[in-house]
Amino acid sequence: MKWFQARGQQSDVAVSTRIRLARNVKGLSFGSRLHSTQAEKLIEEVKEAAAKGATAFSLIRVDEITPEERMALYEKHLISREMMDKKPAALLLSEDESISVMINEEDHLRIQVMSAGIALKECLEEAMKLDALLQQSLYFAYDQELGFLTQCPTNLGTGLRASVMLHLPMLTRTGQINAVISAANKIGLEIRGLYGEGSKAEGEFYQVSNSITLGLYEEEICEKLKDAVERIIQQEQNLRQAYRQQYPGALEDRVWRAAGLLRYARKVTSAEAEALLSDVRLGQACGILAGITAQQLNQLIYEIAPACIELTRDRSLTADERDMARADLLREALQNLKEPA
Amino acid sequence: MKWFQARGQQSDVAVSTRIRLARNVKGLSFGSRLHSTQAEKLIEEVKEAAAKGATAFSLIRVDEITPEERMALYEKHLISREMMDKKPAALLLSEDESISVMINEEDHLRIQVMSAGIALKECLEEAMKLDALLQQSLYFAYDQELGFLTQCPTNLGTGLRASVMLHLPMLTRTGQINAVISAANKIGLEIRGLYGEGSKAEGEFYQVSNSITLGLYEEEICEKLKDAVERIIQQEQNLRQAYRQQYPGALEDRVWRAAGLLRYARKVTSAEAEALLSDVRLGQACGILAGITAQQLNQLIYEIAPACIELTRDRSLTADERDMARADLLREALQNLKEPA
Repeated sequence: MKWFQARGQQSDVAVSTRIRLARNVKGLSFGSRLHSTQAEKLIEEVKEAAAKGATAFSLIRVDEITPEERMALYEKHLISREMMDKKPAALLLSEDESISVMINEEDHLRIQVMSAGIALKECLEEAMKLDALLQQSLYFAYDQELGFLTQCPTNLGTGLRASVMLHLPMLTRTGQINAVISAANKIGLEIRGLYGEGSKAEGEFYQVSNSITLGLYEEEICEKLKDAVERIIQQEQNLRQAYRQQYPGALEDRVWRAAGLLRYARKVTSAEAEALLSDVRLGQACGILAGITAQQLNQLIYEIAPACIELTRDRSLTADERDMARADLLREALQNLKEPA
Repeated sequence: MKWFQARGQQSDVAVSTRIRLARNVKGLSFGSRLHSTQAEKLIEEVKEAAAKGATAFSLIRVDEITPEERMALYEKHLISREMMDKKPAALLLSEDESISVMINEEDHLRIQVMSAGIALKECLEEAMKLDALLQQSLYFAYDQELGFLTQCPTNLGTGLRASVMLHLPMLTRTGQINAVISAANKIGLEIRGLYGEGSKAEGEFYQVSNSITLGLYEEEICEKLKDAVERIIQQEQNLRQAYRQQYPGALEDRVWRAAGLLRYARKVTSAEAEALLSDVRLGQACGILAGITAQQLNQLIYEIAPACIELTRDRSLTADERDMARADLLREALQNLKEPA
């Protein structure tokens, strides 16, 4: 079972949690100044260091796979946009895809732990455990005053980026999301779109993450984020309830229309699929429709991305063929939709 | 079985045929100058005259039913807009609703025969038969030179209006319908919307009818209309074929999306329902979907009209409730839609 197939806490609004630790090895040049022989060697060293722990990892040479496979890893949030052009570059990946280490990204190492729903504490513990394991073999660049040293100064200190993906359709539709984003920014949090940094929040899925990594303990960063996220979740839930009281039947209509389109359309773009799945996920969370779980819907949100679709076929597709393949996948995935009992 | 539940000729494009004969009784004042005592007497006389034939008619006193029931008769094309305010006014209606006589409409009598698909000859024969039967008891106003006398000069002569309802989605979507309308007008035909005279052709259903009633035999009028209609049908069919060749999969997508919305929506306005049913009817005609017949779809097009929906419930409905009741009816009616075998 992959991590995103598990049932998470507060999954009616919270999609997933991600913890990322940026680490660099002392004595090696940072970033693009790292010589490729050293980079090759680093991949081997990290692989061996990780092999000493209880979790089994497979190593994916990101620079040796096809562009579609690389893109699919990006769409699954397993590698960053930057890493797609790096060479040599590798990804250590656990069986359930919850734990991973990017090697030779912007930083030498990016430890990453993901989980369904809200699970900041659990993910942080898992990441710290892997960090400790790797430190048994590797010596990370660390400054008494600044903490862990990183390629980009915004990651200095803990090197921690904690983020929670939220599904906020009602905050989006009422426009209240803008006030939520402003308020979050004021307390050192950032709210971005589905694909994080640089991606516009065009849909109704948002990543809420800490922008400050320095001067706070890891646990404090996660606590602060958790408090803010829970307030946002409460606002979203209040709006859902108020809307359904004020406009009886309106949400049911919208949700079932989206379901009808996904169940029958023959061509669907990724943007439309995301929008329709957002409606269906809201309907599932509100008990308007049954026959699909929040986890299945979370998984679909990743699976409909272009490169993931491309990988379901054994040849490269035109945009039109991709939209047809996506529609096939969605029809199949939603075929058991039904009225709640 | 009602007439619209029968399978008609060329039903992939032709919805229905209607023949109407305008008649007035010699010696009685025409139109609104007719005294109500005389109008009451006329209803009785026509009823008795019709009773001498083989077809059984029921008499509906249009001025004594509820406004919703009256509106529903209008939506089913059984009475005209003008007749809705007439008093006293009545409708003779055969069991299958194919043959009817409006009494005290704009003209004293309007004999009407309807049939599924294209059936101009058959409908005309049926109407002439009833006309002959009524003439055994009633003496119609007739002038050697002008023919049958009518309230409005545009109906003088034969008093015949022959019309065919066509479903022309591709001519509409390509905009070619405008050229078709101009060409039809030049040869003495009119093309109007779903509800005939005064109704805009907003949807994709059109009534093609003769505008000239004088100087031609009834059979000639019908022949001329039939020729023109068959040319229009051919144009529509050519466009359907060309479109599917040029854009593979596009029509399938559009048709199934419409089906998906109708199968799942919880609130549907009559305009949206008409548009979506137009897509589904096109899909049925092109063999894209199965599980429903052209006749069932024709019937639905009438049934979704506001007053018809109103009559499915035993109380008056708000617009919102009507949209919900319409969605219920459509979900039920389309539940057996499936891929063609």
